[in-house]
Amino acid sequence: MENRLKIGITQGDVNGIGYETILKTFEDPMMYEFCIPVVYGSSKIASYHRKALDLQTHTDVIADAANAEPNRLNLVECNPGEVRIELGVASQESGKAAFEALERAVSDYRDGKIDAIVTAPINKATIHSESFSFPGHTEYLEDRLGDGQKALMILMNSTMRVALATVHEPIAQVAGSLTKELIVEKLEILHKSLKQDFAIEKPCIAVLALNPHAGDGGLLGREEEEIIRPAIEEAAAQKIQAFGPFPADGFFGSGDYRRFDAILAMYHDQGLIPLKAMDMEGGVNYTAGLPVVRTSPDHGTAYDIAGKGLASEDSMRQAIFAAIDIERNRRNEKEIHANPLKKLYFERRDDSERLRFDIPKE
Amino acid sequence: MENRLKIGITQGDVNGIGYETILKTFEDPMMYEFCIPVVYGSSKIASYHRKALDLQTHTDVIADAANAEPNRLNLVECNPGEVRIELGVASQESGKAAFEALERAVSDYRDGKIDAIVTAPINKATIHSESFSFPGHTEYLEDRLGDGQKALMILMNSTMRVALATVHEPIAQVAGSLTKELIVEKLEILHKSLKQDFAIEKPCIAVLALNPHAGDGGLLGREEEEIIRPAIEEAAAQKIQAFGPFPADGFFGSGDYRRFDAILAMYHDQGLIPLKAMDMEGGVNYTAGLPVVRTSPDHGTAYDIAGKGLASEDSMRQAIFAAIDIERNRRNEKEIHANPLKKLYFERRDDSERLRFDIPKE
Repeated sequence: MENRLKIGITQGDVNGIGYETILKTFEDPMMYEFCIPVVYGSSKIASYHRKALDLQTHTDVIADAANAEPNRLNLVECNPGEVRIELGVASQESGKAAFEALERAVSDYRDGKIDAIVTAPINKATIHSESFSFPGHTEYLEDRLGDGQKALMILMNSTMRVALATVHEPIAQVAGSLTKELIVEKLEILHKSLKQDFAIEKPCIAVLALNPHAGDGGLLGREEEEIIRPAIEEAAAQKIQAFGPFPADGFFGSGDYRRFDAILAMYHDQGLIPLKAMDMEGGVNYTAGLPVVRTSPDHGTAYDIAGKGLASEDSMRQAIFAAIDIERNRRNEKEIHANPLKKLYFERRDDSERLRFDIPKE
Repeated sequence: MENRLKIGITQGDVNGIGYETILKTFEDPMMYEFCIPVVYGSSKIASYHRKALDLQTHTDVIADAANAEPNRLNLVECNPGEVRIELGVASQESGKAAFEALERAVSDYRDGKIDAIVTAPINKATIHSESFSFPGHTEYLEDRLGDGQKALMILMNSTMRVALATVHEPIAQVAGSLTKELIVEKLEILHKSLKQDFAIEKPCIAVLALNPHAGDGGLLGREEEEIIRPAIEEAAAQKIQAFGPFPADGFFGSGDYRRFDAILAMYHDQGLIPLKAMDMEGGVNYTAGLPVVRTSPDHGTAYDIAGKGLASEDSMRQAIFAAIDIERNRRNEKEIHANPLKKLYFERRDDSERLRFDIPKE
């Protein structure tokens, strides 16, 4: 039986490094052992990039994602008109092409033709239109595939997982956007995701402070005492292990971040600066909390190096692996809970917390 | 002739790790070759810490800093009353003791008895009183020794120098505190400091953006276009080489920070998170822009490890070295400009920018 997952991969902005990262990733034949890839884009544009970069990866056009075949790079045509490629340029055309690919992937996901979505980077300015009035992928997918669930951005690399309480708010609006309810909600989503998506039995979450020195007892801001600490306490009452608020600079300086399964940062740069500064390989963005599993590389369109062959595919590869792992973990969890007769026991004798799927022998 | 600088070192909070870092630093006899240290504190408290930590460094009490002798750890008594030591506890007594030491050091500096000041960490809550109503050392020194000059916090380690446009503002007030004038002023101080204090002939400064993705062309905030970019342009008109605004996460992720002599961050955590996250050794805080040279270690009182012997003196040692280097650079610069007949030439033949102190031979 075929048990490889079908991973939809949207082309993103066609003037950036999206195709370069996709084609380089699938140059390695081993990738096809892990998944059946379905690129949402255009065979012409793919060819353009392939030739410009002198890569060997060919795409196979399929009329319908349902017909995707293993061991090849399937491609669903999403851009009916001509799309002019202008490497490194922000153009409305490339924004439109990115949007068409995304729409089709979402529709195919809804029809059960693909199992998870990986998105190549878009340009938020050019994709903006009447049909796309969202700050980014996350908010769009929350709207289209959320079923009323709230999304939570998790950014991760080999060192840490960072979730963001606010994502694309200007700094002037960050403090005003934070409420106890919001932070509790983010902690709930994060906690559930760590269990269900990352198979961590008892997740341990660090919550960062908003203000310098965590507000220094109120001298440098009161959000810690009035919003963040009460949120942590409310989460604790729900048996969510959350700790903090930690002053962000010291938290990363001391290496304390290594002791937690995830970190909840209060705003974009607070979470992304340390993640990227300490990133040794490719980082991955994951949109937690939604029925659909969606990941993406942690870089942007990188217009400055588009078409130069300089882009690393590491982050794209990690994003694909993450999508596969998370979707698998979710299915495993569902399977476990689908059979209520099968009981779970912890094996305590070896002092570990490994889960056993059968009753320990006496 | 004695040419070692007299470095005043304030004891800071006496319930924290201040004395531990001072005593450990001066356990190494080599330190006395670089400076004549004058500790502002209490011989009783110093002894308490010395015994608690089983250290060998003795202090020599002097009545007046003017009598400080080389090759020993001079100490000026600053705490006339009894001071009860409660390791790891925030107490008003320790706040008062820290303040008395600081006041004396400032007064001695004004009288020309010491050449620069290194401050051990204080607890901002306990030092707060009628006489000390400042968010921290920086603002206090600006008031007492500033002569109308504005201070600029520069934080540095072996990798980078980071200056802060705003320091102790709560996040809710950061955006409102930023003006074009403020950023230009900070760039002027930073530029001057890089030249005068760090002997960099043509400093190159990176300016960070305030908002996520540098505001993404206005979608995520307008301060980049309305405040930061105009400030950079105005600085450029004054021949200050400033570049940006750079999205902060990508700037540190890409390693671009290595290409600049200093970085101007918009707020505390934006500058301190990457600095501390990537810090391999001790970081140093430097209060630039003032007539007095003042440095300090980049850690706090660290009550949790007070008296346990676990504190590293690296940052204190680096702070002392930095104070010596900066004060020396300033004196060299003054000397150079004191003699207008002596002209400076760049030696261009070897493609370097090394400064020569004599006229190149034809």
